[in-house]
Amino acid sequence: MSDLEVYKQQGFGASSGFGQRPALLIVDFVNGFADPKYFGGGNIPAAIDNTKVLLEAARKLKLPICYTRQYYEKDGSDHGVFNLKAPNLGILTDDHPSSHVVDALKPQSGEYVLRKLAPSAFFCTDLVNWLAFRSVDTVIVTGCTTSGCVRASVVDSMSYNYRTIVATDCVGDRAMGPHEANLFDMGQKYADLHDSSAIIERLSKR
Amino acid sequence: MSDLEVYKQQGFGASSGFGQRPALLIVDFVNGFADPKYFGGGNIPAAIDNTKVLLEAARKLKLPICYTRQYYEKDGSDHGVFNLKAPNLGILTDDHPSSHVVDALKPQSGEYVLRKLAPSAFFCTDLVNWLAFRSVDTVIVTGCTTSGCVRASVVDSMSYNYRTIVATDCVGDRAMGPHEANLFDMGQKYADLHDSSAIIERLSKR
Amino acid sequence: MSDLEVYKQQGFGASSGFGQRPALLIVDFVNGFADPKYFGGGNIPAAIDNTKVLLEAARKLKLPICYTRQYYEKDGSDHGVFNLKAPNLGILTDDHPSSHVVDALKPQSGEYVLRKLAPSAFFCTDLVNWLAFRSVDTVIVTGCTTSGCVRASVVDSMSYNYRTIVATDCVGDRAMGPHEANLFDMGQKYADLHDSSAIIERLSKR
Amino acid sequence: MSDLEVYKQQGFGASSGFGQRPALLIVDFVNGFADPKYFGGGNIPAAIDNTKVLLEAARKLKLPICYTRQYYEKDGSDHGVFNLKAPNLGILTDDHPSSHVVDALKPQSGEYVLRKLAPSAFFCTDLVNWLAFRSVDTVIVTGCTTSGCVRASVVDSMSYNYRTIVATDCVGDRAMGPHEANLFDMGQKYADLHDSSAIIERLSKR
Repeated sequence: MSDLEVYKQQGFGASSGFGQRPALLIVDFVNGFADPKYFGGGNIPAAIDNTKVLLEAARKLKLPICYTRQYYEKDGSDHGVFNLKAPNLGILTDDHPSSHVVDALKPQSGEYVLRKLAPSAFFCTDLVNWLAFRSVDTVIVTGCTTSGCVRASVVDSMSYNYRTIVATDCVGDRAMGPHEANLFDMGQKYADLHDSSAIIERLSKR
Repeated sequence: MSDLEVYKQQGFGASSGFGQRPALLIVDFVNGFADPKYFGGGNIPAAIDNTKVLLEAARKLKLPICYTRQYYEKDGSDHGVFNLKAPNLGILTDDHPSSHVVDALKPQSGEYVLRKLAPSAFFCTDLVNWLAFRSVDTVIVTGCTTSGCVRASVVDSMSYNYRTIVATDCVGDRAMGPHEANLFDMGQKYADLHDSSAIIERLSKR
Repeated sequence: MSDLEVYKQQGFGASSGFGQRPALLIVDFVNGFADPKYFGGGNIPAAIDNTKVLLEAARKLKLPICYTRQYYEKDGSDHGVFNLKAPNLGILTDDHPSSHVVDALKPQSGEYVLRKLAPSAFFCTDLVNWLAFRSVDTVIVTGCTTSGCVRASVVDSMSYNYRTIVATDCVGDRAMGPHEANLFDMGQKYADLHDSSAIIERLSKR
Repeated sequence: MSDLEVYKQQGFGASSGFGQRPALLIVDFVNGFADPKYFGGGNIPAAIDNTKVLLEAARKLKLPICYTRQYYEKDGSDHGVFNLKAPNLGILTDDHPSSHVVDALKPQSGEYVLRKLAPSAFFCTDLVNWLAFRSVDTVIVTGCTTSGCVRASVVDSMSYNYRTIVATDCVGDRAMGPHEANLFDMGQKYADLHDSSAIIERLSKR
């Protein structure tokens, strides 16, 4: 029996669908995660290009839009275990260009740019409150890396009871093995997977 | 360049090590996750056997011990998006044997049996408080599934700044592809990986 | 200048109003908090009587309804600092009548009975997820004690960005000084205050 | 029976004591909460003076030290229900002097300055992780206002299982009624109350 058959037999992989009020979450599309010299590479640049189209559609449809940036204090006063596992993360400080959202997806006034310290966009941030205040019930996730901050954000989004959609061509990773493996896990248990054109078509029908 | 080389070049895969006060976390080793007819199978039975040895060592060393069980109300009043993605989860109710910890790892009085509703043992539970009250700084994780509730618990354990150790032969999954892929992700970014005999040796030296 | 004038001058005491989708939260109206021999007394019995009317209205209007019960494991495995400050809390175990919702407000099938360990109904529980899944934007709070679990729940409800309404005749306390002082604090900063008949009238107009 | 006798009879008001590893938390001692023209006044200036002495002692003893600042985005993208109840809070932006820690308590490099949006210093911040990484078990609380952000932070500190100490002469409020009422509530249920000289004496004996 294949892995997929095992999941199917046990009832995983059902759809949680779209709700009535979607928001767009753009995880860590910052310069340092686009650039292979820092933490980027792989299919991340292509995912940024695809996200640009989805972002423009979301703006036209007046969806709430949230970006995340991960960065730390220069004096290390907020470093923790993540910084032990990945010491280079300390490069990401507020004023270092590596922590800034890429120009192609530059946030506009009124869109929310959220600081985070951990993989998940929800972890010890006010994202859940921001969503509640806007009566959001569906979170469309783009960003990087698929096997890191996207995966962690998707697990939390589902756990907080948001219907969660991964835009498959708008998430990227520095390495393709983890990218594919995590798309599988997310699709089976936590989120519905659609490409950006299918999402745009679905959103336009609301 | 291999996936592993990419991670190495970007500074991932460092060790966060052991702290001074470890606790043992046993995730979802319940009948329904041991049994392939429900949500189990694969290498989960072997992982339970190996955990039995680690649990006995932890008891001798007086480590705080916590088990998780995931279960739901019969009337569905606490169902959410996870139940949409995996409708069979509703089988797990408090008095259904599928939600009970396996006999081989039967909890003793004073050990903590934690109820959870979401993948992570930390999500909307009091685990972080329970750890704080015991001055724990290191969480040793066993359980199932590697690609599901173990992974989610490990990400949160690291995010909450606990040094996190995955006992590689004490975690299991219904399918081997996701098992291996998630061990890779966790070892690179969130936790140190050791087998149970290495962990027991390390704990005995404290 | 009176206390009230100071608050007014600094811009406190504005109204956050009702949203579109209210839920009813009934905090700790259990036998042990009705009975002065345990943790009750004062105006709590009157608040229970008034809540009975509000609960019936909420049922007719099909509002989501959540009750909280605070209780602990018999072996003390989940005790913490709260149990040090108030050692008698350990009386409250799952099968002890003192932890059961009072007969006058007996929960019906499909209504959610939430376990909590800390003052706030939101603290390390899945209440925020339960509200999100039901697209709630407004939380109407009744229960006891005004200066304890009601206050803590109201602060969290507001912090999570729910428009929060305290039903002034449906909250009670063992002592009147703290009851009045906490109604003042909540009205100035965290919630709108209305009595149950005004709330029922407002709900009926939706 | 007096209010105090009721609490005593029901077993409230016990001591949770000091643990082994204290930290100092300084809540919202910023210019805008010192100044009665914004949100300050009352005994807050005196509480700042007393905190200066406690802060110096904490620095000598190498305690972990955390300050909170509450501030919002200029474009209002992170405003919520709190901003509806207290619209003037929007004055507090990152670069407005009203949100800066008062000069008398100017943070030093390596001390943690935490941003928050809600009353509690713990709410959707990484304070609990910061404490865990430093193996803290005891939180000494100073700041303002006693009836607002101090109270909310103390309830959460206790709920997260930190032994919590309120430095009675180092907390202040714009109005004395709420100040006294909240000291009573905290002392009975959530924290031990000591003045700064007693705390310094106790810390020096570790």
